[in-house]
Amino acid sequence: MRIALGIEYNGTGFCGWQSQPSGCGVQDHVEAALNAFLAVPDEVLSVICAGRTDTGVHAALQVVHFDCSIERDEIAWVRGVNAHLPSSIRVLWAKKVDPAFHARFSAISRSYRYLLLNDAVDAAILRGQVGWFHVPLAIEPMRAAASALLGEHDFSAFRAAECQAKSPVKTMHEITIERSGQMLIMTFRANAFLHHMIRNIVGGLVYVGSGRHSVDAFRQIFEGLDRSKAAPTFSPDGLYLADIEYDASYALPSARSRLPF
Amino acid sequence: MRIALGIEYNGTGFCGWQSQPSGCGVQDHVEAALNAFLAVPDEVLSVICAGRTDTGVHAALQVVHFDCSIERDEIAWVRGVNAHLPSSIRVLWAKKVDPAFHARFSAISRSYRYLLLNDAVDAAILRGQVGWFHVPLAIEPMRAAASALLGEHDFSAFRAAECQAKSPVKTMHEITIERSGQMLIMTFRANAFLHHMIRNIVGGLVYVGSGRHSVDAFRQIFEGLDRSKAAPTFSPDGLYLADIEYDASYALPSARSRLPF
Repeated sequence: MRIALGIEYNGTGFCGWQSQPSGCGVQDHVEAALNAFLAVPDEVLSVICAGRTDTGVHAALQVVHFDCSIERDEIAWVRGVNAHLPSSIRVLWAKKVDPAFHARFSAISRSYRYLLLNDAVDAAILRGQVGWFHVPLAIEPMRAAASALLGEHDFSAFRAAECQAKSPVKTMHEITIERSGQMLIMTFRANAFLHHMIRNIVGGLVYVGSGRHSVDAFRQIFEGLDRSKAAPTFSPDGLYLADIEYDASYALPSARSRLPF
Repeated sequence: MRIALGIEYNGTGFCGWQSQPSGCGVQDHVEAALNAFLAVPDEVLSVICAGRTDTGVHAALQVVHFDCSIERDEIAWVRGVNAHLPSSIRVLWAKKVDPAFHARFSAISRSYRYLLLNDAVDAAILRGQVGWFHVPLAIEPMRAAASALLGEHDFSAFRAAECQAKSPVKTMHEITIERSGQMLIMTFRANAFLHHMIRNIVGGLVYVGSGRHSVDAFRQIFEGLDRSKAAPTFSPDGLYLADIEYDASYALPSARSRLPF
């Protein structure tokens, strides 16, 4: 049978989602915990995720699936696997799903959130969990620039050189930029994202907010498809994979808001 | 001259605010950084804080003062001291103040915030930064119970045995309890607090919210002044010293909201 899991993790201290020979990926810990809980030597479980995250990037909700021939209660998958996970990774829910479900290919859209502390002094309490920019940012030009990204576009200007996606064309459904005190909270929802795409967009928006690039310059760089002209990649610290949208027929648990932002 | 500092810190990894022989207190790090920045062997600075925090308790804003015979720019105190502090402690501002100013005795009120994750699974991203209770809590009975604490009362039912305050009578100005998704955010403002007072109140409110104590039972325990009948002390993880109120004549920088909660 096929099982889907919802997973929350703090990316600090892991080398990203993807499994690594050294075992430092979040995936390595999840698979080790699944197999430790299952405790069936002949059956080795491996998982497929909805969206790979970079080193230092967090997930309020990552979704994975795996196939398993052995029956376990859904709640047992949650409690049993959590007992074998480091405290910065938690399985939130487990759900038996149709074998047609695929954590990556069934995903209709992904949402990411970026937290940016915009203050003269960097973060102490949320160190590693927020990005930081010291110069006051003007939010309206950032929103104007972001609006140019909505819809289907070639996002090559915000694509990492090592990106392995087949096409640089993605559809951005929604971008919101809100200020809460000294914190900027940016959310991005798209059908899919290129490697480093959000961190590159955030870098570009920060250039606009600080006045280093005009809104027009941002748009020209975006339309010019030339990564080398765009602002640098912003820190992974403030980036959270926030939600994955699937067809309602899969009846996955809705994302619970476990973070106060 | 007398200088006041506003300080933010993540209490995880420190043994509370107060200086300890082993040097693990936040105060130890602040004083070491102040003296390293000042670099005058004949002058050793020591600080007095507005409110001591327990091991694991955070401060969005702690206020301290110290006396120093040597002139430095206010911004130099911020940048210079931060250069010598661990990354989980940050000086937010420095301000020359009237010699009558005293971080502790001039404080009119203190505000604390408690973040409580109310979900079946404990926190991964905010591990160490939120408390956790797994059973769904009813917020209205918690608010009803909290309302009994407003005004001037003897808070002995919520006082730690080792509390050194002269009097158990304090004045609670305000309590708010809000829900944001699976997170409960409680704020408390009083003229002063007894040792463990908020963690003991939170323990009592969680008993009410989970149905283990009725609102009436909570009130009777509070009025009975008997700590032994009250609920256990709740975790320090979700507790934040949030603000200190001083007379406006001191013209201290207003607290900037650097946290998204």
